[in-house]
Amino acid sequence: MTDSLLLSPGPVQVPERARQAMARALIHHRTPAFKELFLEVQQGLQWVFQTENPLLTLTCSGTGAFEAAMINFSRRGDTVLAIGGGKFGERWSGVGRAYGLNVVDVPVVWGNAVDLDLLGDLLEQHPEASMVTVSLSETSTGVLHPIEQLVEVVRSRSEAILLVDGITAVGVHDIPMDELDIDVMVSGSQKAFGIPPGLAFLAAGDRAWERAKNSDHPRYYFDLLRERKKQMQDGQTAFTPAISLIVALREVLEMMQEEGLEQVFARHASLARATRAAVIALGMTLLPDRPSNGLTAALVPDGVHAPDVCKTIRDVYGVTIAGGQEQLKPRLIRIGHMGFVTRHDVMMGLSALELALADCGHAVTPGVAVAAAQQSFAKQA
Amino acid sequence: MTDSLLLSPGPVQVPERARQAMARALIHHRTPAFKELFLEVQQGLQWVFQTENPLLTLTCSGTGAFEAAMINFSRRGDTVLAIGGGKFGERWSGVGRAYGLNVVDVPVVWGNAVDLDLLGDLLEQHPEASMVTVSLSETSTGVLHPIEQLVEVVRSRSEAILLVDGITAVGVHDIPMDELDIDVMVSGSQKAFGIPPGLAFLAAGDRAWERAKNSDHPRYYFDLLRERKKQMQDGQTAFTPAISLIVALREVLEMMQEEGLEQVFARHASLARATRAAVIALGMTLLPDRPSNGLTAALVPDGVHAPDVCKTIRDVYGVTIAGGQEQLKPRLIRIGHMGFVTRHDVMMGLSALELALADCGHAVTPGVAVAAAQQSFAKQA
Repeated sequence: MTDSLLLSPGPVQVPERARQAMARALIHHRTPAFKELFLEVQQGLQWVFQTENPLLTLTCSGTGAFEAAMINFSRRGDTVLAIGGGKFGERWSGVGRAYGLNVVDVPVVWGNAVDLDLLGDLLEQHPEASMVTVSLSETSTGVLHPIEQLVEVVRSRSEAILLVDGITAVGVHDIPMDELDIDVMVSGSQKAFGIPPGLAFLAAGDRAWERAKNSDHPRYYFDLLRERKKQMQDGQTAFTPAISLIVALREVLEMMQEEGLEQVFARHASLARATRAAVIALGMTLLPDRPSNGLTAALVPDGVHAPDVCKTIRDVYGVTIAGGQEQLKPRLIRIGHMGFVTRHDVMMGLSALELALADCGHAVTPGVAVAAAQQSFAKQA
Repeated sequence: MTDSLLLSPGPVQVPERARQAMARALIHHRTPAFKELFLEVQQGLQWVFQTENPLLTLTCSGTGAFEAAMINFSRRGDTVLAIGGGKFGERWSGVGRAYGLNVVDVPVVWGNAVDLDLLGDLLEQHPEASMVTVSLSETSTGVLHPIEQLVEVVRSRSEAILLVDGITAVGVHDIPMDELDIDVMVSGSQKAFGIPPGLAFLAAGDRAWERAKNSDHPRYYFDLLRERKKQMQDGQTAFTPAISLIVALREVLEMMQEEGLEQVFARHASLARATRAAVIALGMTLLPDRPSNGLTAALVPDGVHAPDVCKTIRDVYGVTIAGGQEQLKPRLIRIGHMGFVTRHDVMMGLSALELALADCGHAVTPGVAVAAAQQSFAKQA
């Protein structure tokens, strides 16, 4: 196969329209043309985040933006409850420790959603908690934590603000930030937005901004008060932004607007259901007890080594998926279906997965995964 | 005019070859293909930096990378001598203060190069100084500080390490990092490298890395020891990088290799000489006493308002240059000639500048700037 297909849980395939936009002549960021572009993009992002809160675009990865949120909306020594259960949830615990926060880990078995009773108990044991962090769609395990209940537990038991890493949730699932009263939500350009990595987005409400005034963590590039003033008042960024990615972002936001937000969510749900049906038909087991629609994380059949599957599907069949991280490496594969992925893309990926699994020694009935996906789509129609 | 020309001191025009590379299908960053790309780009950057030191690529603006250098190579309370003389030199003083460093400002009149005697005196008054920062090519004033003498003064009077913001110097001027024994040097993608903003590069030598072990500044995204391990050992970045810009970077590094480093420096020198001759012929005054070859910073003739010139040349003639910053705003214009700029680009820009100055009320003899540039090029041939 000469074609290549990127079906990883980020970065994802970039639509032609966005790629062509990046190939156009670069514009300068201190011009009215950029300001117009930037305001348009900000409004588009607020529309996807479903918020009227200030929304900032930062030139960094999602990790950088979540770190910025954690340090601008807390003080040194503050207690933060960090919901674990995966590489990314646990990363926020590491960020908290790096900045001298009092981190209370909320333990979650990898593959499970957070135990809300345990979270409630920990919040009662830590009435001083100022912050709760969660990787809403935990990209390392494919779990989607229950956001409505999570907000309710936090609000009813605590004065803590809730910081949502929505990196693989925003634009995939319907997470109406304002309606749900989420304090801070972060996402990244290379996930549902379908453009290359390099930009991260951060929206925050009044409770969080109130705390920003008292933050005592040292910061400069990630000083969100400076950034808020520049972006919300001047239509500029404090420092030179990744202009070509912002230009691409305008294209994909327009594409999302043409499709409609509900349809975007429905398409992700439909692709996820079909992919889950397909991997089960292949004898695989879903890892998450509550799966995200951004990716399918599944354990390969016994006797198969997951890294071999990832290598074979990429090197022999030209499809890039992701393996597992940390302790899940030997058994997990992760298939991304975020962004502007179509049914055809999923079919191509599943066909390649059948072939790769067979090459890796698993007995596969040809067409079984593709058939399961077709049936899933047919049922939805 | 329908064509537009970007002659600002960054971002600069992106060559077609790099723009087309960004329009290709995105690759994943955790693959052998990326690793190969990344190692190639790292070597190319080391070639431009003229160093064998570890060289890191960060997804952020130049400011983020310089901040990273300042905090990884110092301890809280350390004394830093920050060479001023412009918006960027003074910015490093602000970063130092944000992190609780004991900042000693080395005052420099905007437009002048640093006074080496004063710097020497301050170093003797502050034997505890652990760090000296300088914006080698100060983009707000167009000054190029004398790097050889600067290194000599720092080395002979102090144990301090020298951090060079080479954002508009690297790839423009011959700054052989290892030969000059520069401790840390930083640059950015949107200057001499001629690709869009979003990446910054940081090279550091043994003295600096030795200090990194003892840094007590909190950091996570900008933790350079983690990044060094990932990039130099694994050919990976710690966090998702701006992949499309790294792909573009390979193209421009190849273009620089095809041209040859000496020829790249010579071309910048030639364009700078011609531009300086042209603005003088237009009755303007060079601001810097020791001009950088990356940009020409010149005061407009009396009676002309610089922001009007910038607006007219952009809106009427399609050429984007930059105005002055802070106190220099009413009188300064800055013309960039960094990256893959040709003589033709400079001629187009100067022709437009003649027209814009005339529109803004200055008596211009048509062709005077273009003629001066032509003569300058002829003399060089």
